Amino acid sequence: MDAFFNPRSIAVIGASNKPFNLGATICEYLTFLNYDAKIYAINRKGEDVKGCKGYRSLLEIPHDVDLAIILTPAPAVPDVMEECGKKGIQAVIIETAGFTEEGEYGRKLQQQVNEIARQYNIRFIGPNCLGTLNAHNRFCCFFGARPGEYDGVFERPGDISYVIQSGGVGVLIMDSLRSDIVNVNKMMSIGNKEDIDEADCIDYFNTDGTKVIGMYLESIKNGKRFLEAAKRSSIPILVYKVGRTSEGAKAAMSHTAGMANNDTIFDAACRQVGIIRCKAISELHSMPKIFTTMPLLKGKRIAIFTNSGAFGGITSDLLVEAGFEIPTLSGELQQRISQCGKLYNVSNPIDLGPTLSLQTFIDIFTNLLSSDEIDGICAVPNVWQQVVIDGILELMKLCKEYDKPAGIYIPNAVDRILKVRTAYSIPSFESPEEAVRALQISYQYYCASRKKSFTQSKTSAVI
Amino acid sequence: MDAFFNPRSIAVIGASNKPFNLGATICEYLTFLNYDAKIYAINRKGEDVKGCKGYRSLLEIPHDVDLAIILTPAPAVPDVMEECGKKGIQAVIIETAGFTEEGEYGRKLQQQVNEIARQYNIRFIGPNCLGTLNAHNRFCCFFGARPGEYDGVFERPGDISYVIQSGGVGVLIMDSLRSDIVNVNKMMSIGNKEDIDEADCIDYFNTDGTKVIGMYLESIKNGKRFLEAAKRSSIPILVYKVGRTSEGAKAAMSHTAGMANNDTIFDAACRQVGIIRCKAISELHSMPKIFTTMPLLKGKRIAIFTNSGAFGGITSDLLVEAGFEIPTLSGELQQRISQCGKLYNVSNPIDLGPTLSLQTFIDIFTNLLSSDEIDGICAVPNVWQQVVIDGILELMKLCKEYDKPAGIYIPNAVDRILKVRTAYSIPSFESPEEAVRALQISYQYYCASRKKSFTQSKTSAVI
Repeated sequence: MDAFFNPRSIAVIGASNKPFNLGATICEYLTFLNYDAKIYAINRKGEDVKGCKGYRSLLEIPHDVDLAIILTPAPAVPDVMEECGKKGIQAVIIETAGFTEEGEYGRKLQQQVNEIARQYNIRFIGPNCLGTLNAHNRFCCFFGARPGEYDGVFERPGDISYVIQSGGVGVLIMDSLRSDIVNVNKMMSIGNKEDIDEADCIDYFNTDGTKVIGMYLESIKNGKRFLEAAKRSSIPILVYKVGRTSEGAKAAMSHTAGMANNDTIFDAACRQVGIIRCKAISELHSMPKIFTTMPLLKGKRIAIFTNSGAFGGITSDLLVEAGFEIPTLSGELQQRISQCGKLYNVSNPIDLGPTLSLQTFIDIFTNLLSSDEIDGICAVPNVWQQVVIDGILELMKLCKEYDKPAGIYIPNAVDRILKVRTAYSIPSFESPEEAVRALQISYQYYCASRKKSFTQSKTSAVI
Repeated sequence: MDAFFNPRSIAVIGASNKPFNLGATICEYLTFLNYDAKIYAINRKGEDVKGCKGYRSLLEIPHDVDLAIILTPAPAVPDVMEECGKKGIQAVIIETAGFTEEGEYGRKLQQQVNEIARQYNIRFIGPNCLGTLNAHNRFCCFFGARPGEYDGVFERPGDISYVIQSGGVGVLIMDSLRSDIVNVNKMMSIGNKEDIDEADCIDYFNTDGTKVIGMYLESIKNGKRFLEAAKRSSIPILVYKVGRTSEGAKAAMSHTAGMANNDTIFDAACRQVGIIRCKAISELHSMPKIFTTMPLLKGKRIAIFTNSGAFGGITSDLLVEAGFEIPTLSGELQQRISQCGKLYNVSNPIDLGPTLSLQTFIDIFTNLLSSDEIDGICAVPNVWQQVVIDGILELMKLCKEYDKPAGIYIPNAVDRILKVRTAYSIPSFESPEEAVRALQISYQYYCASRKKSFTQSKTSAVI
C-alpha cells in the first residue's frame, strides 16, 4: 500500500495541456505541494505538463515508476493497464469513471481491467475515484484540486485516516477539520473498489500511525472481509453508511455502483466487531477527537459540570436518554466539593454559578475524577471569562492523570466555539448532543474492545 | 404587556454605585442603548447611577413610572412591591432570586409578594429571571449585560420572539442568531413565573408582529392555560423542554423551581395543539427560518437537488427516515429536466454534476416546482462557484412564486455556511439532518394548522 501514499516516481496518464484537463490539475497540485518525487505526464503529444516531463507512453520513461494515475477515458483504460503491466508498475489509481456504474459496456471494460491486473500482479484503487492523500509527506493526487485549496490539511498533519466513497464528503471533512483540533493522516477515495477495498484500508491504517479510521461508505464490497478486518483492528473505526433506506441505496447505486446491503444485518454485524456507526455525516469529523484527546470512558456514571443551570438540565436529559447514569454524589463527596468554593449545586449536576477562581475549578475536577463514584465528566461551561478556559485546560490534564474522559461543550455560538477550540486546543464539541454522543461512542468502543480482547485471550487459552 | 417591552419611564430598584451592583448594569446598558425613556435608580443613598437620576424611594419620584425592575435581595422584595402598589405601578419585573427555588422561607416570601400584587392589581414577571428585551425599540433590562455585548440583536431586529427560562440559553440564542438570517423581535426570561407565564406570552406574541415563537421551558406553570393559548395561536410555537427524564427534571427543579411534568403526556398534548417540540436546543434558533423565509410544506413528496452524488444518497436516507417520499419523477418530467442541461441524474435525486449555467438551475427548479409530482425540494448544492449561489437565490424566488418550500443545506464547513448565509441571506441549515428536519417541522405545522382551522370551522358551523 505504501506506493499509493509515498511514491518516489509517478506517472499521470492522460495529463495534457488541453483546457480543463483533469490530469494536468494533479501535475499542477503536486508541483504546488513541492512533493518530492519524479512526476511524468503521459499524453499523445508527449508534451511536458505544468513542469512535469512528458512522454507519449509509459514505456518511454527511462526510469522506474512506483505509481500510475490513470485519467484517460474509460475505453482506453485496458490498454493503459497493459502498459502499466509491461512497465512493471504494481500500484495504479484509476480515477476515470464510466465502468460498472454505467451499465453493460462499462462492466465489460471492467472485466478486462481486472484480468490485466491479475495477470501482471497490479494492485489498483478505483475506478471512479478521487485518489489518495498523505498529509505528512504532502502527497495528493485528487483530480481537480486547486493550488492552495487544502493548505490547512498539509500544514497540520494528524492521525485520523479516512476512506471516502465520495469526493464531496471528503472535501466537507477536510474543510471542517480546518477548525478542529485533530487532523488528517491519510485520505483515500476508493470509488468502485474493484481491487483495493475497505478491508485493505482498515488493515493498512492499523500499521501507519493512524489513531482513528473514518469511513464514508455507499456499499460494502465484501462483507466478510470487511468484518474480519474490523475485528482485527486495534483502533476505532467510525462508519457513516448511506443506503439505510432503499431510496438511499438506490441513490448511492447510481453514484458508485454499490449494491444495496441490508441495513439491519449490517448494523448487527458492526455491533459484533466493534465498528461505531455514525448517526450524522458530521460525526465523521467531530467524533475522532474524543479518542485522540481523552482516555476511554470505562463506565456509565457521569458527573455533569456546568456554570449555567439550564445546561445541567439539558445534559441530564441527553445523558439519560443515551443510557448513562447521573448518580447523586455521596454526602462525603458533596461536602468535599462544597469546600471548593461558593457553588450553586454540588449533588450532580455540579453548578458552579459565577465562580471565578481557577483553584475552584481544579479542586472540583480533582475531587470528581479521583472518586470511585463517577467514570467520566460531561463539562458544559459557558466561556465568558479567561478563567473558564484555563479551568478547561486543567480539566484536560486531570483527565489524563486520572484516566477518565470529559465530553466538553461550550454553550456559545458555533463560530465562537471554533475560535476557542483552535486557539486553545480544547476538544469542545459543537452542541450538547454531540458532547454526550462522544461519551457514548467512547464507552461503546471501550466495551467492544474489552469483549474483543476477552475473546482473543480465551481463544489463545484454548489453543 | 406593553409596559414590559415599551415603558416610557422605568425605575431600577436596587441600582447603586457599589462594585458589582447588578442594577447598575441595567442603568448602564439602557443608557448605552440610548433607550428613549426616563430611567430612575432607587437606592438607600438616593444617588444617581450611571447617569440615571437617583431616589431613596419610588414614592419620591415626581413622575409616573410605567415599569419597576426589582433587584434588591429577596427579603426586601415584599416592601418594594408594596411601594410599587402605592406608586400606582402596574408592571413589575422581579429579577431577584431566592424565592420558591430555595425552600420554605422563599416560599413564604413569595406568598407575600403574590398577595401584594393581587391587592394592587400589579402584573409581574419573575422572580428569578433575566428580564425582557425588545430589539425594535432598543429596550433591554437583562441584568449583567455589558455595553456592546448584544449589538447585533439591536442592529437587526426581526420577528422571532423567545420565552426562555434561562439566561444561559437566551445568550446562546442571541449569540447564534448573529450568524443567521432571522432575528429577534422580543425576548423574555420569565424565571419562576409566579404571575406572567407561558400562556400570557403566547397570547401577547400573537399580537405584536411576531412570526415564530421559541420557548425554552423547564416546567409548565399551568398546563391547561398553556395548551389553550397554544391552540389559539396563529403562529408556530417551537418548544424545547427540559425534564424529559427524571434526572433532567430534578436538575431543572433546582434551577427554577419547576415541577416535573410527565413528558409523555406533555408530548401528546403538544401534538394535539400543534406545538412543535425541538429535538435539540439549537433548533430554537435554527428552525424559525423555514417559516420566515419559505412557504409551508403542504405534502410529503420531496425532490432532492444536489451537485454531489453522495449527498443525494445521504438526504434520501434522512428524508425517508423522517417520513417523506422521494418519488421517481414521471418519464415526461424527467425528459423535460434532461433538456435543462447535461445532468448526471434526472430521476430524483436530481444530480446536477459540475454544471455551471445559471439557466440550468432556473429551468430545473421551475420544472420541479411547477409540477404536481412534488410538494417541496431538499436542495443540497456544494457552493464552489458564484453561479451556485446565484442558483440558490433564484430557487428562493421560485419557491415563493410556486408556494412550495426548499430545505437548503450547503455541504461545506460550518464557518463557510455562516458566511454564505449572512452575505446572501440564504436560509441554509448547518447539516443535512437540520435541512430535512426543517421540512419535517414545516409539514408538521401545516398539518396541525389545517386540523385547527378545520376544527374551528366545524365548531362555528355547529354554532
